[in-house]
Amino acid sequence: MKMKAIVTVTLKPSILDPQGEAVAHALQNMGVKGVQSVRIGKHIELEIEGGEEKALRAKLEEISKELLSNPVMENFHLDLRAGG
Amino acid sequence: MKMKAIVTVTLKPSILDPQGEAVAHALQNMGVKGVQSVRIGKHIELEIEGGEEKALRAKLEEISKELLSNPVMENFHLDLRAGG
Repeated sequence: MKMKAIVTVTLKPSILDPQGEAVAHALQNMGVKGVQSVRIGKHIELEIEGGEEKALRAKLEEISKELLSNPVMENFHLDLRAGG
Repeated sequence: MKMKAIVTVTLKPSILDPQGEAVAHALQNMGVKGVQSVRIGKHIELEIEGGEEKALRAKLEEISKELLSNPVMENFHLDLRAGG
């Protein structure tokens, strides 16, 4: 069965995000008011042909932790759904 | 009212994604089977203090198109919700 996994990787709240701050300043300079913070993370879409959902989810959790994120400074969220 | 906007920027399907392909190959080399494609995009969280929701949404759509994405090769999706 074909599954689609979306892994969202975000910086932990205590980690500074200079790229996000640059975007926030650019928005202010463009005249956009009210922006209080901008944080930038990664959005990773995997299409995976896999067996049983529970095993697939465990495998994807491991991949997310080991390869797609840096557990020292990032959190990840895994969303697994049917379809490609 | 404080709002949270999440802008997801993804490459258009016709655009090659070498970063995603590198991740797909790394997964294969790690022995993960069944990965058919990996595409990497940006996940941008904005906290914004804004007036009326409709105007705020229009402003954020414009920001997403003009600043946060490159309309030639990327699509964006805007998700606006209450709370910070």
